[in-house]
Amino acid sequence: MRNIRLVVEYDGTKFAGWQSQHKSQVTSRKPQVTIQNTIEEALHKILQEKVKVIASGRTDAGVHALGQIANFKTHSKIPCLNLQKALNTYLPDDIVIMSAEDAGPDFHSRFDAKSKVYSYSILNRTYPSALLKNRAYFFSYPLNVKLMQEASGVLLGRHNFKAFQASGSTVKDSIRTIKRLRITKENNIINFEIEADGFLYNMVRNIVGTLVEIGRGKFPAGSLKKILLSKNRRLAGPTVPACGLYLLKVEY
Amino acid sequence: MRNIRLVVEYDGTKFAGWQSQHKSQVTSRKPQVTIQNTIEEALHKILQEKVKVIASGRTDAGVHALGQIANFKTHSKIPCLNLQKALNTYLPDDIVIMSAEDAGPDFHSRFDAKSKVYSYSILNRTYPSALLKNRAYFFSYPLNVKLMQEASGVLLGRHNFKAFQASGSTVKDSIRTIKRLRITKENNIINFEIEADGFLYNMVRNIVGTLVEIGRGKFPAGSLKKILLSKNRRLAGPTVPACGLYLLKVEY
Repeated sequence: MRNIRLVVEYDGTKFAGWQSQHKSQVTSRKPQVTIQNTIEEALHKILQEKVKVIASGRTDAGVHALGQIANFKTHSKIPCLNLQKALNTYLPDDIVIMSAEDAGPDFHSRFDAKSKVYSYSILNRTYPSALLKNRAYFFSYPLNVKLMQEASGVLLGRHNFKAFQASGSTVKDSIRTIKRLRITKENNIINFEIEADGFLYNMVRNIVGTLVEIGRGKFPAGSLKKILLSKNRRLAGPTVPACGLYLLKVEY
Repeated sequence: MRNIRLVVEYDGTKFAGWQSQHKSQVTSRKPQVTIQNTIEEALHKILQEKVKVIASGRTDAGVHALGQIANFKTHSKIPCLNLQKALNTYLPDDIVIMSAEDAGPDFHSRFDAKSKVYSYSILNRTYPSALLKNRAYFFSYPLNVKLMQEASGVLLGRHNFKAFQASGSTVKDSIRTIKRLRITKENNIINFEIEADGFLYNMVRNIVGTLVEIGRGKFPAGSLKKILLSKNRRLAGPTVPACGLYLLKVEY
């Protein structure tokens, strides 16, 4: 049996995430369109076989990816390049397969991930952007990038990030290692790039939301360390919108 | 009477252009949604007054703008900043007013334009992009950027660009001056930036379409001069799709 590894780009705007996350919270009876089931349906048509596609991690509704990794097992003998082309023909144009290749039989896109890189984009000017709608978080109050850069240093390294984990999350171990956190500004776009060995649910969006409170002067610059040590989600800033978040890369 | 000058950004994907261009060619009886009438309707709600908005030039269906200039006359006394904010509230999120200011009484966004800058983006790789759909022209055959750069030099300066004008166009004077034509490549994006004192209908898209034929080796590198001198649209390359075209700037 083959184990195929995919690199996937998607515009998350119209999807209910990689996979519906909270079945109990779904009030509509209409089945939700997820990136996972869209790819599985395309594969079903191509391979005439039902497969389960596993990703490095689930991304939420509205979150984008430039390098999501996924894998699935199949009996098919179709060459990888043909499979990639067939998928790109069957998939809607907001999901693109960047590559398909045979992986070792034991490769597991979620369990084997060593680190992930996310980026978050904020459009920081007084009026929104037509071309960046659903691509960046429009935030009109001035943000002090230098303050955010200086404050963010305390997050680097191995910590308990419970304060930045979505409340109600059931994951028990909230210790993660942030390897890199870089904040840059070009024109009116402030970009956060964060690499960690793993991320808790909503962790990037809660960290950025807290840094935004510091950047606009609502939280004092020194507050980040206290929030981190408190392990209390209620002390951190709000969760910034999904549209600014991109899964850039997964390393194995 | 005030004369208000607007700087407008738009995602042209869902619009029938700045203004419906060819009434004789419209087969559907459904009124077309244009950027001009969308802005005029928003202004009507805000000003309680019917105004006519004139742009520096009409852009086609699917063409984007990062700095379209438009102006209109009004009796209203509403301050410019309030007008900008009200417009951005009433307009759909694919049209954004970047600024509104009082212009001199004689300012005319079309007649007074001294030069315009357009850019054209090609995504040149073997598979499309989810995040660049409707934002760049996906072209999968390899393009030789150096060949296109070298060939493009003959277009600089004052010439009769009839060979690159849409056939059937009724404009009589097809002499224009290209001040700058820069072709760059970053990652898989090839970008063409063209500045001229004015552009004929479809001129940018026909020039890029001809350069693409040179870049892929279908037209010899030396063919561009012959095509220019021929003044024959049929010798030039195809019109590349609207989605890659952006009106960047208008100078006065």
